[in-house]
Amino acid sequence: MDELYYFLIASLVISVGAFAFAYWLYTWVKKQPSSNPKIAYVGKLIKAGANTFLKKEYKVLARFAGVAAVLILIFLPKPIWKWDFQNALAKDLIANVGMAVSYIAGTIFSAIAGKIGIDIATIANVKTAEAAKEGIKPSFLTGFRGGAVMGMAVVGASLLGVSLVYLITKDSTMLLGFSFGASSLALFAKAGGGIFTKTADISADLTGKVELGIPEDDPRNPAVIADNVGDNVGDVAGMGADLFDSNVASMSAALVMAVALASLTNNTKLVPMVFCYAMLGLLSSIIGVGFARMSKKSGPTSALNKSTYITTVIYAVLTALATLVFKFEWLIYGAAMVGLFVGVIIGIVTDYFTNDEKRPVRNVAKASESGPAFTILSGVSYGFLSILPAMIGIAVSALVAYKLGALIDPNLANEYGMFGISMAAVGMLSIVGMIISNDAYGPIVDNARGLAEMGELGEDVVEITDSLDSAGNTVKAVTKGFAIGAAGLTVIALLGAFVSEANAHILDLGGKVEDLIKAFDIMDPIVFFGMIIGAAVPAVFSSLLMLGVDRNAQRMVKEIHRQFEEIAGLKEGKEGVEPDYNKCIEIATEGSLKELIPAGFFAIVTTMVVGFVGGVHAIGGYLAGNIVSGLLLALFMSNSGGLWDNSKKYVEAGHNGGKGSDTHKAAVIGDTVGDPFKDTAGPSINTQITVVSLVASLLSGLFVLFSIF
Amino acid sequence: MDELYYFLIASLVISVGAFAFAYWLYTWVKKQPSSNPKIAYVGKLIKAGANTFLKKEYKVLARFAGVAAVLILIFLPKPIWKWDFQNALAKDLIANVGMAVSYIAGTIFSAIAGKIGIDIATIANVKTAEAAKEGIKPSFLTGFRGGAVMGMAVVGASLLGVSLVYLITKDSTMLLGFSFGASSLALFAKAGGGIFTKTADISADLTGKVELGIPEDDPRNPAVIADNVGDNVGDVAGMGADLFDSNVASMSAALVMAVALASLTNNTKLVPMVFCYAMLGLLSSIIGVGFARMSKKSGPTSALNKSTYITTVIYAVLTALATLVFKFEWLIYGAAMVGLFVGVIIGIVTDYFTNDEKRPVRNVAKASESGPAFTILSGVSYGFLSILPAMIGIAVSALVAYKLGALIDPNLANEYGMFGISMAAVGMLSIVGMIISNDAYGPIVDNARGLAEMGELGEDVVEITDSLDSAGNTVKAVTKGFAIGAAGLTVIALLGAFVSEANAHILDLGGKVEDLIKAFDIMDPIVFFGMIIGAAVPAVFSSLLMLGVDRNAQRMVKEIHRQFEEIAGLKEGKEGVEPDYNKCIEIATEGSLKELIPAGFFAIVTTMVVGFVGGVHAIGGYLAGNIVSGLLLALFMSNSGGLWDNSKKYVEAGHNGGKGSDTHKAAVIGDTVGDPFKDTAGPSINTQITVVSLVASLLSGLFVLFSIF
Repeated sequence: MDELYYFLIASLVISVGAFAFAYWLYTWVKKQPSSNPKIAYVGKLIKAGANTFLKKEYKVLARFAGVAAVLILIFLPKPIWKWDFQNALAKDLIANVGMAVSYIAGTIFSAIAGKIGIDIATIANVKTAEAAKEGIKPSFLTGFRGGAVMGMAVVGASLLGVSLVYLITKDSTMLLGFSFGASSLALFAKAGGGIFTKTADISADLTGKVELGIPEDDPRNPAVIADNVGDNVGDVAGMGADLFDSNVASMSAALVMAVALASLTNNTKLVPMVFCYAMLGLLSSIIGVGFARMSKKSGPTSALNKSTYITTVIYAVLTALATLVFKFEWLIYGAAMVGLFVGVIIGIVTDYFTNDEKRPVRNVAKASESGPAFTILSGVSYGFLSILPAMIGIAVSALVAYKLGALIDPNLANEYGMFGISMAAVGMLSIVGMIISNDAYGPIVDNARGLAEMGELGEDVVEITDSLDSAGNTVKAVTKGFAIGAAGLTVIALLGAFVSEANAHILDLGGKVEDLIKAFDIMDPIVFFGMIIGAAVPAVFSSLLMLGVDRNAQRMVKEIHRQFEEIAGLKEGKEGVEPDYNKCIEIATEGSLKELIPAGFFAIVTTMVVGFVGGVHAIGGYLAGNIVSGLLLALFMSNSGGLWDNSKKYVEAGHNGGKGSDTHKAAVIGDTVGDPFKDTAGPSINTQITVVSLVASLLSGLFVLFSIF
Repeated sequence: MDELYYFLIASLVISVGAFAFAYWLYTWVKKQPSSNPKIAYVGKLIKAGANTFLKKEYKVLARFAGVAAVLILIFLPKPIWKWDFQNALAKDLIANVGMAVSYIAGTIFSAIAGKIGIDIATIANVKTAEAAKEGIKPSFLTGFRGGAVMGMAVVGASLLGVSLVYLITKDSTMLLGFSFGASSLALFAKAGGGIFTKTADISADLTGKVELGIPEDDPRNPAVIADNVGDNVGDVAGMGADLFDSNVASMSAALVMAVALASLTNNTKLVPMVFCYAMLGLLSSIIGVGFARMSKKSGPTSALNKSTYITTVIYAVLTALATLVFKFEWLIYGAAMVGLFVGVIIGIVTDYFTNDEKRPVRNVAKASESGPAFTILSGVSYGFLSILPAMIGIAVSALVAYKLGALIDPNLANEYGMFGISMAAVGMLSIVGMIISNDAYGPIVDNARGLAEMGELGEDVVEITDSLDSAGNTVKAVTKGFAIGAAGLTVIALLGAFVSEANAHILDLGGKVEDLIKAFDIMDPIVFFGMIIGAAVPAVFSSLLMLGVDRNAQRMVKEIHRQFEEIAGLKEGKEGVEPDYNKCIEIATEGSLKELIPAGFFAIVTTMVVGFVGGVHAIGGYLAGNIVSGLLLALFMSNSGGLWDNSKKYVEAGHNGGKGSDTHKAAVIGDTVGDPFKDTAGPSINTQITVVSLVASLLSGLFVLFSIF
């Protein structure tokens, strides 16, 4: 049997192992005690609300995916009118059906992981709140293990899916279909969830804190449950789908290029290497999660960071051993390590810009003393500044990974170089299981904080959940930097995959070697044309999402006002009077799915217009422009959002005037601006870039056939 | 005699004609009556302050330019150790001296135009205020003719300089030196002036309006004169230097490519065509300015717009005639017209996003009802959206202009194509004389409004100047869009100039035809590396400028507080007690020049690092990334800034609660955020892109010689 099959089977085993581990964590969390009836009641409301959103989202997605699957069936990988009806109908038919099925599978695998994540998150929040009565250590462990269920499910599902598709079809192009399925879901989950969570958050704050002067998480506020639901659908399910997407895309890009290289060189080690590295990443994350605990001395932040570093080291050692044993290319090992290392660096630098012990956060807090305009100006300034290290990191790691790969064979410098970049992305995303665990921990403890308040568990308990929450915020900023960096490398690798695909189509359609794409020359006006349009897309995309949040929040505020007016005794907090929480959840759900459509539509249609106008060369420029400006804006929005959030928290901790001061008011305004930046638009740009890259790759055959220029 | 000389001489004649016309306008404005002693007194203070800034700026610049000139002497165009000491020492020496002198000439020509502009602006503000007593029509004419002096001086000086340098040296490379001189000055004038004006504006508002509750332009405020000075140094001198720079750069790029093409094809019509089109642009602007008047029915906005359209039509007709008579290429005429047409379109679209009769401004005003966070969020969203039409416009015009040029000779498609793009930029900038006149009109009438208030000329007069001021704001946003579009096309053309230069150096250094740069391939990792770093530069550059404004404003606020504390009777407005205006002007001046250094340094040093690390290919990607992200951010910042400004004005006009309401407070916060966006960072990015492009072109020989990769 081929060596590859051992690796494929090992990948399947480890994926299933991840699910088993997730199940064990799930039951462990579920077993934790809970007794407070009020918390249980609110917890149930949140769970029901999150499931309402998920059901609706999946329903809309199913319709979208159905249409997309039919289109794939007709057009991809080979348009129906190009089928060879005489000789190879079965082959062409199977290819198109395979692509459509892979696509559907991509959406379903991601959807299942999302559903698991939401389920556990809406149990773990209650358990974490109750565990806080016992102290910070058990509470931390409950929150973290809840998040880890999501981490294991997402990475397990992505490796399982990629391995299965490859095992069954033996065709790396099918992986692009699977990956596009994952991206479709991510677009709905991340952008839709992002609109949901900020709609609810903003409306709750505006009507509650600002208008009525009641505290956050006050149960009288009709939007309070929607706000908690939002944390789960936006930050747990959305973020999970986003990283599922990036992880699948990076593996797919690496495999597409490994297969292309293998056919050129008879190097049978490359495809196994990709699977081996991917599964070792998952294994390292399992080990890292298993050992995560708060020690006696250190706080929750350092516990989270420590387990990330442990995972990193385990991964570096395991892949080195594997490279030694299986005689993989050491240069590619180097490329993967560059990715991993730069990912950590980006994380640390992002931390500098959003950590309240560093200058940027403190300077923004100080600037807030002069009023909100200065909160915004200084935050925007630091946000713009903060992109530099990550951009340099991505640029340098892509360059170094390419050069390392290119050393393998000077005659195939470009092919090995691009493979090196894709493996740097795989390396950077290797510890994604750990990253997601850390990230999902955030909204769980955030919810727990709310529940502790609503369940009246007392000052001490709220304080414990508060400190867990603050650790979640710090870690979240770091993992976001990581996710954006990884997405950056992945889409550079996808650019390589796009060229492979387009060239295959050109040959398929009877093109000669001279017709193949050799370069996307910036001086070629059609490439430059694509580049400028591509650069505009992320800005417009985020604009449409933010305008959507705004419109949706206006609807919800109206509904909240109506409830306060029409439900007698609500405002006064009369015993037994309860707002209609579900109405707000409905508004957030329907609005978010409705508002995300123009943005998604815009990105996909623009890609098609550029492709059908300017052909594959315009698309090459378009993708480059899109990546560059997308990275820029995603980093800017995520970092400035995190910065404002932590500046507000810093002021609330008693600095620069403390809570209730004018400085605090200014800082709150900064935070409100930052919320859709960091939770809606910023992270959705990741998904937008991947979706656009995959649409371009999938449609490359059509662009070759039909284009004006 | 060569046909070219006729055109060169005609260019010189028309340039001198423009100066003569400027002189006539100057004396006309000066002749207008003024009698109010208070206005005369304040006017003198403003004039003195502006001259203080200018003197200091030119002194710092002289030092900078001196160092740069010495470096040029040693390194450019040929490094001293490459000189041919045996055979052609004189030639090499003359070339380097010529370059250094051209550079110095570039700074001096621009400086003279700036000085003339400031002189007339600080006279015209007084005259305009006084003329408002007679009615809106004479007041408009005075303000407009004041601005037109600047317009004529800038365009006259740029055409004169370019013609002289070419006439004397007959070497198009020397024009890059001249252009770099203009860029150096623009960097100081635009970025320095931008920091000055916003420092003063913000400090005056914060201490006056916010802390003390005294009106804008209240003479008790120590920063009030600095604020008025700022309008002149930032918006008049800075903007003039910026457009001088763009105009020179577009002509230089077109000439570099025309000369390269002429040597390949013996087409002697190309260089004359560039001069002919440039001088006809100036001629059209002279005619347009001469006919500008307010009609009985229409307001000042339509008067400004009408004269712009008239200029456009005259230019289209004159160039068509010239093309017919002198048998120039009609396809290149087409390219120039595409540039002109797209410029107008960009202007109109920008108007949509900043006009208070359109949805964006009104929606932002409406959003302000929910608080300042929503002012910011909706403004940012519309700002991001607003970039799309301009980006499409630039992309399409570059593509069409290239394709038109390429039709001339299929064997030289690329050369003619790039020439087409450069002529589109010349076409877009053809009416720049008119644009500057409109733009300089803005700060003059803004000052006039302040003077009318300080001189207590009464409600009616203030109202007239108010309506003139509002027209200035509308037109300003349009001209800014125009300037950014033109800069975009120009730098694309400069990219072509960079390749010409680098290839000339490669050949000079003994390289073979195979070594020449044929393409900047996006898939080449070194190009991609450059592209990502280049994209980061405008963001970091604007961040450094805005942080500079912030630091400088803090210094000035401190000084204002000191004056209010130490000068007895100042706060209460006791007769005869006057603040120390000069101290504030000094702080703004020194701070602005100090704060601009890190930003300028960063942009230039990063370019050098990328060039010496990655060589000319990295620089190709770097320039492309820089252009794309620079355009994006410049459009975003300029448009959102204009939008917030006009939203505030819209609320102040009595909508959504009107003056003093919470909505108004929110709108004011938006305006404060928008100020450094639109007056400091946004427009400075233009200059940054040009500076970086020219540094790259000038140092291309060194990058060819020394680079790591």
